[in-house]
Amino acid sequence: MKKLKIASLPGDGVGKEVVPAAQTVLKAISDVHGGLRFDFTEYPWSCEHYLKHDQMMPDDALDKLKDADAIFLGAVGNQKLVPDHISLWGMLIKIRREFEQVINIRPAKLLKGITSPLANPKDFDLLVVRENSEGEYSEVGGRIFRGEDEVAIQNAVFSRRGSERAMRYAFELAAKRKKHVTSATKSNGIVHSMPFWDEVFQSVKTDYPDIGTDSQHIDALAAFFVTQPQRFDVIVASNLFGDVLTDIGAAIMGSIGIAPAANINVNGKYPSMFEPVHGSAPDIVGKGIANPIGQIWTAKLMLDHFGEEELGNKLLDIIEDVTAAGILTPDLGGKYGTKEVTGAIAERILK
Amino acid sequence: MKKLKIASLPGDGVGKEVVPAAQTVLKAISDVHGGLRFDFTEYPWSCEHYLKHDQMMPDDALDKLKDADAIFLGAVGNQKLVPDHISLWGMLIKIRREFEQVINIRPAKLLKGITSPLANPKDFDLLVVRENSEGEYSEVGGRIFRGEDEVAIQNAVFSRRGSERAMRYAFELAAKRKKHVTSATKSNGIVHSMPFWDEVFQSVKTDYPDIGTDSQHIDALAAFFVTQPQRFDVIVASNLFGDVLTDIGAAIMGSIGIAPAANINVNGKYPSMFEPVHGSAPDIVGKGIANPIGQIWTAKLMLDHFGEEELGNKLLDIIEDVTAAGILTPDLGGKYGTKEVTGAIAERILK
Ligand SMILES: CC(C)[C@H](C(=O)O)[C@@H](O)C(=O)O
Ligand SMILES: CC(C)[C@H](C(=O)O)[C@@H](O)C(=O)O
Repeated sequence: MKKLKIASLPGDGVGKEVVPAAQTVLKAISDVHGGLRFDFTEYPWSCEHYLKHDQMMPDDALDKLKDADAIFLGAVGNQKLVPDHISLWGMLIKIRREFEQVINIRPAKLLKGITSPLANPKDFDLLVVRENSEGEYSEVGGRIFRGEDEVAIQNAVFSRRGSERAMRYAFELAAKRKKHVTSATKSNGIVHSMPFWDEVFQSVKTDYPDIGTDSQHIDALAAFFVTQPQRFDVIVASNLFGDVLTDIGAAIMGSIGIAPAANINVNGKYPSMFEPVHGSAPDIVGKGIANPIGQIWTAKLMLDHFGEEELGNKLLDIIEDVTAAGILTPDLGGKYGTKEVTGAIAERILK
Repeated sequence: MKKLKIASLPGDGVGKEVVPAAQTVLKAISDVHGGLRFDFTEYPWSCEHYLKHDQMMPDDALDKLKDADAIFLGAVGNQKLVPDHISLWGMLIKIRREFEQVINIRPAKLLKGITSPLANPKDFDLLVVRENSEGEYSEVGGRIFRGEDEVAIQNAVFSRRGSERAMRYAFELAAKRKKHVTSATKSNGIVHSMPFWDEVFQSVKTDYPDIGTDSQHIDALAAFFVTQPQRFDVIVASNLFGDVLTDIGAAIMGSIGIAPAANINVNGKYPSMFEPVHGSAPDIVGKGIANPIGQIWTAKLMLDHFGEEELGNKLLDIIEDVTAAGILTPDLGGKYGTKEVTGAIAERILK
């Protein structure tokens, strides 16, 4: 019996609706698969927690989380309650950094039964490997001068180690897929970090002679995600570029509500964290219509991470059976609620 | 008789095909409109120039350009000949900066007869005002440590003056349009420059009580360009964010080959520069199929800039007549060449 300790962090907004939904599905999986059990411990950290305690998470939060086998996160942030840079850096980004979750992987794939906003969405199936710990998201910087002369300086910090690590991760994944890695750059406009990124990419790729490569500037790449997403396999990108590309990836999949993500700790020292791409969507909270698929697909990435790839793939097939059957939430043009979509998935697992 | 001195810089690749095409159209306009004349002086600066002279432009280039009423540029760059950061910073970005072309405006609008890659492209008509002189495109930065410890640091530099200038420009334009400005931010992830940008936006907007506003994170905004472009009027963005958004804008218009741009000098000290969004497209050079519409639409922005908005609007109507008639280059699914599309536009002007 494999018992997995999962720290569950529903967080804000619809996170509190879709995390329980995905738990129902994981429970169904362990009901069927006798050898697997998920023990969830839930922590109520969120913007509401901040309003009460002046911090997003208690001082001992990381201590509490660190022995989990994985962290299962819903969504963090609600601008109406707490400024985003406080809520995110106090929880989401804090966990990513403190637990050295240096890689963020985000697949984008068109599921049957789902209408993409693209007129002619060929069968795309791509995977963005996003550097998740450095780059443009940096606490280094500040301001100088006052009044109309004020200047803000923001440092982007790219280490060879960090860039190379993300790239190698991308090459390893590509080896198991269509054997192509695209590097997202902008060395024509950004003249220190991006030529450096390109150099590292050129040097890393020589270790993977079987994998095809290309480099695309982020502007062109963003456009290609709209015009020809099917041409990509694995894309490796800096923190910011990966962030932008994966929201476009989510959009062309038909809804940000279905896009999954995983924050991977690669040195085995800390748990990895699984969270969908979407945010807390305060506008639809409480209506019972939040799309649970992003969170459930994220659970599939967690299964993969635990070495249960067969189960993971099966879960994705079942998700696709349900979308193909038209059991969809309103964001996908359907008329079903969170419960019904979740129920349809759980039911198919159980039988 | 209004005589306008235009410095023509075809640059690289298809620039040398579409600039003459747009000149034909401008010539037709002045043939019809007796009171307007364009005197072109052409400069052959390009990557080929670099290979011969070790510089993209001669030492006295800016001197030669500075008395022009406008600069009309094709495209710069050809990675196969010269690394992009050399060709671009030696010419395109150099002119933008030395001539204080601090604003870049780029409309995105769906023309009749053109198939967008979007399934259901409502009638979008948006305008990105891109800060064009600072932000993420900065020469400040460098490297430290060696070997596997190497780190590159890239500074993004945001001045209040520069940010505010771009925002005011956006508000002024919005006042003549649908009266809404969206600010592109990423203050949830990028904690120095972007909260500063937000602050400046909050303060600037109080001067324009009649203009509606919102702020969107760049990841969400990029996705909205795909899912609901019709919801935007004017978007104000930093240099990098504007770059990415406008390539997506070009993609949803149906082809990067039709998207226009203008680099505006706002203090009247130097000429403004008009260049389409597309690059030099080395893969189609010499085939006679480059889409001239981007360059011709750019000429419309130049007419607007000279106060000839009526002529400019008429030119855009004629462009749209031609696309509506299905006279399209292959990038738009058509079977016509550069010459035929240009001819069709010129002909309609002349009659
Ligand atoms: C070529 C490149 C430096 C340039 C930019 O990023 O500004 C281009 O993409 C553009 O948008 O004009
Ligand atoms: C909320 C925000 C800080 C975050 C990010 O930019 O990393 C989100 O957009 C994401 O992609 O996970």
